[in-house]
Amino acid sequence: MSTTDAQKQLSEADHLWINANLMTFEGTESYGTLNNAIIASKNGRISYIGSMTEDLLDTLSELSNSQANKITDLQGKWLSPGLIDCHTHLVYGGNRSQEFEQRLTGVSYEEIARQGGGILSTVKATRKATHEQLEASALKRIEHLLNEGVTTLEIKSGYGLDTETEIKMLQVARSIAEKIPANVTTTFLGAHALPPEYKDRADDYITLICEEMLPKVKAENLADAVDAFCENIGFSPVQVKRLFEHASSMGLALKLHAEQLTDQQGTQLAASFSALSVDHLEYVSEQGVKTIADSGTVAVLLPAAFYYLREKQLPPIQWLREYKVPIALATDANPGSAPCTSLLLVTNMACTLFQMTPEEALKGVTINAAKALGMDQKVGSLAVGKQADFAIWDIDAPCDIPYAFGHNPCVAVVKDGELVLDKLSS
Amino acid sequence: MSTTDAQKQLSEADHLWINANLMTFEGTESYGTLNNAIIASKNGRISYIGSMTEDLLDTLSELSNSQANKITDLQGKWLSPGLIDCHTHLVYGGNRSQEFEQRLTGVSYEEIARQGGGILSTVKATRKATHEQLEASALKRIEHLLNEGVTTLEIKSGYGLDTETEIKMLQVARSIAEKIPANVTTTFLGAHALPPEYKDRADDYITLICEEMLPKVKAENLADAVDAFCENIGFSPVQVKRLFEHASSMGLALKLHAEQLTDQQGTQLAASFSALSVDHLEYVSEQGVKTIADSGTVAVLLPAAFYYLREKQLPPIQWLREYKVPIALATDANPGSAPCTSLLLVTNMACTLFQMTPEEALKGVTINAAKALGMDQKVGSLAVGKQADFAIWDIDAPCDIPYAFGHNPCVAVVKDGELVLDKLSS
Ligand SMILES: [Zn+2]
Ligand SMILES: [Zn+2]
Repeated sequence: MSTTDAQKQLSEADHLWINANLMTFEGTESYGTLNNAIIASKNGRISYIGSMTEDLLDTLSELSNSQANKITDLQGKWLSPGLIDCHTHLVYGGNRSQEFEQRLTGVSYEEIARQGGGILSTVKATRKATHEQLEASALKRIEHLLNEGVTTLEIKSGYGLDTETEIKMLQVARSIAEKIPANVTTTFLGAHALPPEYKDRADDYITLICEEMLPKVKAENLADAVDAFCENIGFSPVQVKRLFEHASSMGLALKLHAEQLTDQQGTQLAASFSALSVDHLEYVSEQGVKTIADSGTVAVLLPAAFYYLREKQLPPIQWLREYKVPIALATDANPGSAPCTSLLLVTNMACTLFQMTPEEALKGVTINAAKALGMDQKVGSLAVGKQADFAIWDIDAPCDIPYAFGHNPCVAVVKDGELVLDKLSS
Repeated sequence: MSTTDAQKQLSEADHLWINANLMTFEGTESYGTLNNAIIASKNGRISYIGSMTEDLLDTLSELSNSQANKITDLQGKWLSPGLIDCHTHLVYGGNRSQEFEQRLTGVSYEEIARQGGGILSTVKATRKATHEQLEASALKRIEHLLNEGVTTLEIKSGYGLDTETEIKMLQVARSIAEKIPANVTTTFLGAHALPPEYKDRADDYITLICEEMLPKVKAENLADAVDAFCENIGFSPVQVKRLFEHASSMGLALKLHAEQLTDQQGTQLAASFSALSVDHLEYVSEQGVKTIADSGTVAVLLPAAFYYLREKQLPPIQWLREYKVPIALATDANPGSAPCTSLLLVTNMACTLFQMTPEEALKGVTINAAKALGMDQKVGSLAVGKQADFAIWDIDAPCDIPYAFGHNPCVAVVKDGELVLDKLSS
């Protein structure tokens, strides 16, 4: 771009952030770093990215005289794409902390189950809860994510397991989208667990999902994707295949909870449907990794669940690297296996527990998380034309983010070019 | 107390919190729970604790008419003693995130050491840093703790390893005490590691500590306790004994980093000096646990370091329970083995990794942490006469706090009877 073009872009921008160090996650530099840079937005999109070259300083000083309010001097702070939490179960009723306490005080699993504990207690509470209750409790949890620079998040259904409640959960997720400064994508996870009404009749429940739930979800445009829990304690690959055939015939994108506890070859099944992502993957085989490398399916790893369940089997980072599978990370925020609402903590857990590199961890919550949601044309990196969704960091280097844990160096968040969280001035 | 006495106490109080659920950590109830309660402060101390009985409602309604500003209706929220982080290394220069990144990208320990990495890089940076720089960087880290309800914290020296810098670190800790709404206790940890100037001369370094550092620290009243790192890569029990003899002859309280990597029987040594606490304890023997049970020494466990170092050897919770040793928990906040500034996360790690109960975890960051600092007459529980230091929580039950991770349900903090953090109204 010529200097004149650049000057024009800057003059026409709605907002400019100058003296920034950018993690663009574009190009071949580590973190896509661009030091001492300018980034500008127009109409909510990124309109310009470039270095603070000599020949632009005059333009900037002119602009800062005439339109000072549109320029933010970041004084060397780092600016990244807004973070993306691509796998959450943030909408649910009730609370499972008592169950956590019971387990640690020595109450047996049998006794807890007898009292109606486990996922079915969440199902019961979610069925009972009103739209307003579900929304209010989810918004509290989401606030923590937003304060960490999250500007895109996915929310799954899956605690209703009946048509009415699954629809209610997705409606809550859609209404949350209206109330927070973040993109919210929704995933229909009717095949999360077998509802008590269908005990020993999993095939019939899949039929209910395909013939009653899916058509309604589709008609009301309530879901951006369809997901299932493929596991010996969940649904078999044959059952998932039937669901995926229905869902993909309706044009819905696919995701799958796969190989968390055993290798069911759900990964290969998902790849055969060109699913957006396969999630968990502790027990995936090398063959499974190969097939998703070919299908372009993203591997979503969930270290918070690995930590909380005290798992020992690590997901095969080396194979994922070898076959160049994009790795995304997410909180998996849910009441049973990961009551976690910090995506920053997840980046540390990925490095500490999975020995991922800091750059892999940060790509996992930006560009690769965008791919896991099929949104990488719109978000996940800093590139002209993408949404102007930024997180601004008070750090010395990108690796400071996953290095520490139980911290939050995010000092400002920008969504669609507008400042939505500002601790810069304090 | 008669109703008339109670009415008098309430009328004379500076501030009242009503409709509160209290975790007092006093008495035999689980968490020392007192539901539907009133707690009052006068001159910065707790002046009244009691139930919201019928016969006090008139008094409260009179007070709320005449002095509404002194009453806060907590509407059923939980109120606990302010949290206590009893083991931190929060003051230091430099940053070790690059080293973290190097290790994860495959640079060998030898190469990192050759580049001057490890603890000595922190020593170098701390020696170079000014008082102001050390203070500013520590205050940023401390802010995260304060937002979680911490009202008392300990800070160690130990990255100077020369007289000037050890004194500087303690002075920084003392000046931080003036700037934050928290009690700060300081611990002199000259015997943290061997400085490069004393390579192969550990005994001479202990002599320097005893004859030069300790007298200055004492003369300027810079430390509330003296600590050492007893380990085969640190100082031997014989060396620690000499240090402890000097320190205790000066009337200084003692603490010890003991049995983190091997069993050096530092625990028994510390017990023989009636030390306040022994910290880490992964490798402590049953005999060691017995001796601290007798000496009244607190066991301080540090799950964040256990997590970050990917340790496998668990501290012996069962023996600690069996011999009724008070267990405290702390962040161990430090740049090398626990860059962690969340005490709430530590409570979850204690439950998840060490299988402690939620009640044990919360006692570990309140009453038992107070004992580890010798401050249990002043802080750590809700009792008349203690400092009016409170954390107020938007939770349904105490176990909600350690159950979730990467969250912060603290909505207000009170220090010496004054509101110092307030998210109640938002
Ligand atoms: Zn999930
Ligand atoms: Zn320590």
